[in-house]
Amino acid sequence: MKQVQEYIKKNKDQFLDELLELLSIPSVSADSSFKEDVQRTAEWVEKSLKKAGADYVEIVETNGHPIVYGEKMVDKNLPTVLVYGHYDVQPPDPVELWDSPPFQPVIKKTEIHQDGAVFARGACDDKGQFFMHIKALEAMSHAGFFPCNMKFMIEGEEEVGSVHLADFCKKNVEKLSCDVIFVSDTAILANDVPSITTGLRGLSYVEVEVTGPNKDLHSGVYGGAVGNPLNILCEMIASLKDEKNRINIPGFYDAVKVYDDDYRRQMNKAPFDLKKFKNELNINAVNGEKGYTVVEQTSIRPTLDVNGMWGGYIGEGAKTVLPSKAFAKISMRLVPNQDPDVITELFIKHFQSIAPPSVVVKVTPHHGGEPAVVPTDTPEYKAAEKAMEITFGKRPIPVMGGGSIPIVPFFEKILGAKTILMGFGLDSDDIHSPNEHYGLFNFFKGIETIPYFYAFYAELKN
Amino acid sequence: MKQVQEYIKKNKDQFLDELLELLSIPSVSADSSFKEDVQRTAEWVEKSLKKAGADYVEIVETNGHPIVYGEKMVDKNLPTVLVYGHYDVQPPDPVELWDSPPFQPVIKKTEIHQDGAVFARGACDDKGQFFMHIKALEAMSHAGFFPCNMKFMIEGEEEVGSVHLADFCKKNVEKLSCDVIFVSDTAILANDVPSITTGLRGLSYVEVEVTGPNKDLHSGVYGGAVGNPLNILCEMIASLKDEKNRINIPGFYDAVKVYDDDYRRQMNKAPFDLKKFKNELNINAVNGEKGYTVVEQTSIRPTLDVNGMWGGYIGEGAKTVLPSKAFAKISMRLVPNQDPDVITELFIKHFQSIAPPSVVVKVTPHHGGEPAVVPTDTPEYKAAEKAMEITFGKRPIPVMGGGSIPIVPFFEKILGAKTILMGFGLDSDDIHSPNEHYGLFNFFKGIETIPYFYAFYAELKN
Repeated sequence: MKQVQEYIKKNKDQFLDELLELLSIPSVSADSSFKEDVQRTAEWVEKSLKKAGADYVEIVETNGHPIVYGEKMVDKNLPTVLVYGHYDVQPPDPVELWDSPPFQPVIKKTEIHQDGAVFARGACDDKGQFFMHIKALEAMSHAGFFPCNMKFMIEGEEEVGSVHLADFCKKNVEKLSCDVIFVSDTAILANDVPSITTGLRGLSYVEVEVTGPNKDLHSGVYGGAVGNPLNILCEMIASLKDEKNRINIPGFYDAVKVYDDDYRRQMNKAPFDLKKFKNELNINAVNGEKGYTVVEQTSIRPTLDVNGMWGGYIGEGAKTVLPSKAFAKISMRLVPNQDPDVITELFIKHFQSIAPPSVVVKVTPHHGGEPAVVPTDTPEYKAAEKAMEITFGKRPIPVMGGGSIPIVPFFEKILGAKTILMGFGLDSDDIHSPNEHYGLFNFFKGIETIPYFYAFYAELKN
Repeated sequence: MKQVQEYIKKNKDQFLDELLELLSIPSVSADSSFKEDVQRTAEWVEKSLKKAGADYVEIVETNGHPIVYGEKMVDKNLPTVLVYGHYDVQPPDPVELWDSPPFQPVIKKTEIHQDGAVFARGACDDKGQFFMHIKALEAMSHAGFFPCNMKFMIEGEEEVGSVHLADFCKKNVEKLSCDVIFVSDTAILANDVPSITTGLRGLSYVEVEVTGPNKDLHSGVYGGAVGNPLNILCEMIASLKDEKNRINIPGFYDAVKVYDDDYRRQMNKAPFDLKKFKNELNINAVNGEKGYTVVEQTSIRPTLDVNGMWGGYIGEGAKTVLPSKAFAKISMRLVPNQDPDVITELFIKHFQSIAPPSVVVKVTPHHGGEPAVVPTDTPEYKAAEKAMEITFGKRPIPVMGGGSIPIVPFFEKILGAKTILMGFGLDSDDIHSPNEHYGLFNFFKGIETIPYFYAFYAELKN
């Protein structure tokens, strides 16, 4: 282990240079015009795994973007860990709000990241994080330190719902067999408050289209009589929440897990400063479901957010048009034990039912994902806890996360293995936003911590 | 007059060729990237007026787009008619819904226009209509038939609120002095049901910006706690109307003129077929204010329409963003005796007051316009009535219009003259929509009718 850590220490500049190279390829999976870049990124990851010492690497083509699979098998009597990550990234829009181009990574200091942070789309989510695992492998290979067998599955469709990964897993249960799945795609509470994610919300995502008249109309000639799809879409969306900010879809809360007072008290002991939270976002008030704290609202309670909306004239100046169509992208974060397929169906049924007769509504589901719970009494949780305790000098706190990694419950179902979520990002890293970044502290801390995980896991598993 | 009509008959092809040329210049006043095209159109109109026989023509530069002014003064004892029109056009968006490019005019037959119609942005609103006046002048010049003095004021900013015309009028009251203002920028009920517009709705137009957090956020990490500007804007807009589709802004209806039952009965005698109306727009139901007919909803009742709305991720696929900002363009059509400035103030005050503390709301007024009433007991109305009766073979019906020509009440205030609204378009001509067109029947019928108006007006005025 000493040799491993020394290698990491000596090669930091090299690791960082390679990360910048990886971040400069625009692997936007949602936009088909980036298809070749996504492919190029897969090839880059393949090469990088080989260089790090994997003894088998392949690019698996799918009907969408490829999966990079690699192995470092040492001894069948050792436990096997499957590292999962994704090399695809969110679209960079709105590009005009970035201080530097999203695919030209730069290193800048920030108030939180005094040692500097890499600014680029995907820096934290998830290129900077899965790449830590490859560099940890490299350091371990250099030292010949292999307490576990290692498998790597780095996909290119996480940001679009991992559509083809499921198929790959189902067809390769044997090949992917493992004792635990190891993922770094989550956050710690702060650089001096390490934490491990013990739960994740699920996701239901739909796109709605409201059609009124068969063409754009003059709002003077037709206004007042013809239903305006934008007004109506506003009314329909507004009706989806009540005055307590509870979601008004019949059956929506039926499966929601109720946490007892004791659990909620424990949760709310995690350090959270509402004033600081509001200051950082420059808001005067939060606006969540009545009766729950922000920590609860963003973890154990489901949501309904409009992620995008458009219709009519959105150019410069004024145009008095009564539009033919209005659109919205709406997502719901789900909590245990909500089923995304059930919720999507409930949404579609309800949304259709509230449409007035003057419009026609079409709802198209995008990808969804199930909520996940990570138990804390497992060898992998204990191993992660001990590993972070060594490198951070503090015991990590278990935290329920608000985001979704839909593949986690899926892995359990298909591969029969639990997942450990040991991410190193920060909530303030602006993932999915302009100016996404990842702290150098966090990047290197991750590389240092990962080898300890393998060591402790091998120990605790046997 | 015989010579006038013969000249028109002989020169139809030439008139049409010239109209196509005029329509091929993209004079979009709302978009500054078309500034040179707008200027070029002004020059085209100037030339055209000179060619038609005006004895004085000038291009008046403003701080925005120029005004073309021309005169044919014959005898100071004759009545003077000031023709008003506009050579600017609405933006062509959404361009992808046009069957042919908006600035490459083509002639096609339609179900309604069996003689063919010109398809191009501005064909009906208002290039095709003001150009009829220039061609009528040409025919009258050819015949030496001048029953009135004629002035022409063709502006380039009608679609953006005639911002600089007011100033021009105020500074040139003497130059513009006239007995009546003559405008063709409205519609007839059908090609076999001539009508004259006797009222126009006013307009208040605002743009709203709702700001939540200071940057786009990850909807998983922050969703459920942080107010989403898109959800909130939907809720705010939805709250602007009640379940009867009445507008929920305090004071909004205070000045609205109440028409008695007798007047409303008369109004509803105008031919209107609800089934046909719905079929043409492909809607199953209308969605107007309860207690009023479609004819009333689109003329004597005010409206509130969202003309455009945008925010968040509007590209391909799914992005789980909680946006920082949401925007909408909202317009209200006003009726006698609503004052657009008062209504805009009421809107701003109300909209600010309903914003929850989690967002900040900014409202920017665009141009507005007062509602107008055209009396029917005037020489100009009678002259228009008689002129149309001759050329259509049917007496025109007085009709309240739903659109706005904000300059009409302004002319009365500044120039002390009433306006006659003798337009020849059809409501189905898709003005402000993709595939705007203007019937050849209507274009030529206008050119034929206009000289009769001058003849009867001179007769009735003395």
